[in-house]
Amino acid sequence: MLAAALQDGTASRRCTFELFARALPAGRRYGVVAGTGRFLDALYDFRFGDAELDDLATVLDAATLQWLREFVFRGDIDGYREGELYFPGSPVLSVRGSFAECVVLETLALSVLNHDTAIASAGARMVSAAQGRRLIEMGSRRTHEESAVASARVAYLAGFAATSNLEAGRRYGVPTSGTSAHSFTLLHTDAGGPDEAAAFRAQVEALGVGTTLLVDTYDITAGIDTAVRVAGTGLGAIRIDSGDLGVMAAKARAQLDALGATETRIVVSGDLDEYAIAALRAEPVDAYGVGTSLVTGSGAPTAGMVYKLVEVDGVPVAKRSTNKPSRGGAKEALRRARSTGTVVEEVVHPMAAPPALGPHDRALMVPMVRGGEVLKELPTLDDARTHLATALVSLPWEGLKLSTGEPAIPTTFL
Amino acid sequence: MLAAALQDGTASRRCTFELFARALPAGRRYGVVAGTGRFLDALYDFRFGDAELDDLATVLDAATLQWLREFVFRGDIDGYREGELYFPGSPVLSVRGSFAECVVLETLALSVLNHDTAIASAGARMVSAAQGRRLIEMGSRRTHEESAVASARVAYLAGFAATSNLEAGRRYGVPTSGTSAHSFTLLHTDAGGPDEAAAFRAQVEALGVGTTLLVDTYDITAGIDTAVRVAGTGLGAIRIDSGDLGVMAAKARAQLDALGATETRIVVSGDLDEYAIAALRAEPVDAYGVGTSLVTGSGAPTAGMVYKLVEVDGVPVAKRSTNKPSRGGAKEALRRARSTGTVVEEVVHPMAAPPALGPHDRALMVPMVRGGEVLKELPTLDDARTHLATALVSLPWEGLKLSTGEPAIPTTFL
Repeated sequence: MLAAALQDGTASRRCTFELFARALPAGRRYGVVAGTGRFLDALYDFRFGDAELDDLATVLDAATLQWLREFVFRGDIDGYREGELYFPGSPVLSVRGSFAECVVLETLALSVLNHDTAIASAGARMVSAAQGRRLIEMGSRRTHEESAVASARVAYLAGFAATSNLEAGRRYGVPTSGTSAHSFTLLHTDAGGPDEAAAFRAQVEALGVGTTLLVDTYDITAGIDTAVRVAGTGLGAIRIDSGDLGVMAAKARAQLDALGATETRIVVSGDLDEYAIAALRAEPVDAYGVGTSLVTGSGAPTAGMVYKLVEVDGVPVAKRSTNKPSRGGAKEALRRARSTGTVVEEVVHPMAAPPALGPHDRALMVPMVRGGEVLKELPTLDDARTHLATALVSLPWEGLKLSTGEPAIPTTFL
Repeated sequence: MLAAALQDGTASRRCTFELFARALPAGRRYGVVAGTGRFLDALYDFRFGDAELDDLATVLDAATLQWLREFVFRGDIDGYREGELYFPGSPVLSVRGSFAECVVLETLALSVLNHDTAIASAGARMVSAAQGRRLIEMGSRRTHEESAVASARVAYLAGFAATSNLEAGRRYGVPTSGTSAHSFTLLHTDAGGPDEAAAFRAQVEALGVGTTLLVDTYDITAGIDTAVRVAGTGLGAIRIDSGDLGVMAAKARAQLDALGATETRIVVSGDLDEYAIAALRAEPVDAYGVGTSLVTGSGAPTAGMVYKLVEVDGVPVAKRSTNKPSRGGAKEALRRARSTGTVVEEVVHPMAAPPALGPHDRALMVPMVRGGEVLKELPTLDDARTHLATALVSLPWEGLKLSTGEPAIPTTFL
């Protein structure tokens, strides 16, 4: 595309591309924009070096190679801030510049946003389901090693308290947390057989009594007895990773209380998703460790966002073929709300013709890049986390239901 | 775990960890081991540098930091070769060394293998469904930017002909291929309106008549007429990305033939998975472009593999808690086959007590790492692709059915 557009001169036409989702994943009531920060970071590094160009030399002509060698994005980007809710058709990013400089960003923008948005959207439902209880992200081993780091980042954005991914702590400042694995308990086996007490003792000596002991390697009841015997009633927490977690949590709470360990918390893990988290609301669970379901988007591993050319030299353009309707023209959006703050409607309008903003309405797009320069005042990860928490409170109550349904608010296209 | 094990001296115990899946994804009949090559490449680079250690200094004691600074894996690894089929309980990797050096590899090994295996396993079903027709991997925009490269690599392993991911071409030598997007056609719009012919002309001039023209931006019938008018009857291919692909392919074939473009191929794309590919068997489709369903594992985005300690200083160890049974002791495996070559049983046995190998049986585990050195004669990506194609032919015929069912062969544990 790039080679052909450079050759016939259309590469320099001024274009607007929009990144949006035609629909939310089946039955979801809202989506959470995520990855914008990572995308803007990547934009700085998105260059073609000798290694790439040497490889492309077999398929591209000299003029295209030269263009790629000199490529730096010089256009403008506006979009929904990270942590913003989105709905079908929300113009999550608007990328403007020459056709050539915008089209080469397609895969980068979509990869980052489709992945991170899918994970954040699932994570937000889990946080809602947990109703204030602590969630720990533990999914690194169930997804690609780099997806794992990105997932930990957006789990925090979604409201998770911590991650077991140390690299996400280093790279993005996400709080880290962890417990031991069964292998650590099993390691404390010798010719005399398993010695769970030795494992607990080693952990407490290294990490203090505030640590979390994994009590279900052998018999849970015996494990809890041993844990409190070794650590004392000041033990920080126990973790249960198997069995019927609701039943086990209730039994464990009674046992801990009877042993005098009334402040010892109970962490549960093991194939938890938002539904399992909600089902444990009535049980004495203090924290959830969530892995697979988070990093796979809990049934929706990609957000299904697309990146479409909507305007060329000021002329709106759109596909006309069946099944995949698209709307031409550069667009912006606002969200209408009642005086109570509850949102009622997403309004997508031509960029050139914004409707009047009511006293409780909010314009949704913010400037992100101007002339290729990423703006400095962009929100941090913590800002995004706070923004999302506020946005979720603004949804009509049925918008937070876990059951399948329509988007929480309708989108109107002006 | 590492800090506590270093402190109480258990870190140096000789351990065997095994990487395996308790089950295949629901209804799947086989899985395809993938990622081994990437894991072994990553093993060389798996070190803790100043940036990581500075960050960890807030949570780890000096002795643990020093151990990490000096860490190099010095153990042994055996496993199923990349492209090998696996079944529930197959010991896909066996990692042996000190507890400390084996336990720090857990997240790396699982992340790489869980991701790559999930994608390869879905891809192999698509290749079976396509019955020799060409598959092109186009899913980069639907998954994390690094997962995209890894997915393109294992799609090729699974039998895909090519990928649209140029970085996978550069990094792993995967053949690359691509077509234009709707944006390229839409770009050719001016005050006079859309000019599909101009877009096709530009593409043919840049890439020759062998190129693939996307004909469904506006009206497909008109698009095909225009494509043949511009490129001539020697046009390489057309691509259809929307509508009822079966109906459209049949109509397009008739139209192309009537226009004299009898050799022009038909490429279809748009939310294809293995079922949609199979459903198009009777239609005149020459190639499939597959995106979302491949990179999300077609309903199974992770392989669910785990990494478990099975032996400590020669003593078998295993969890005893409910729901997640595990089998202690270092294991190996062989696959039994009839004289026809059809496989009948996976046999997992203690490493120390291999059963007799029948004339058509095959030992499944190969040495990969000795004393920390990755062995040189390991299979290439092309070897893995060939190995998988051969292994799939060895399955009982019902093992290749797309419908849900039991694993194609039972696993026996000796």
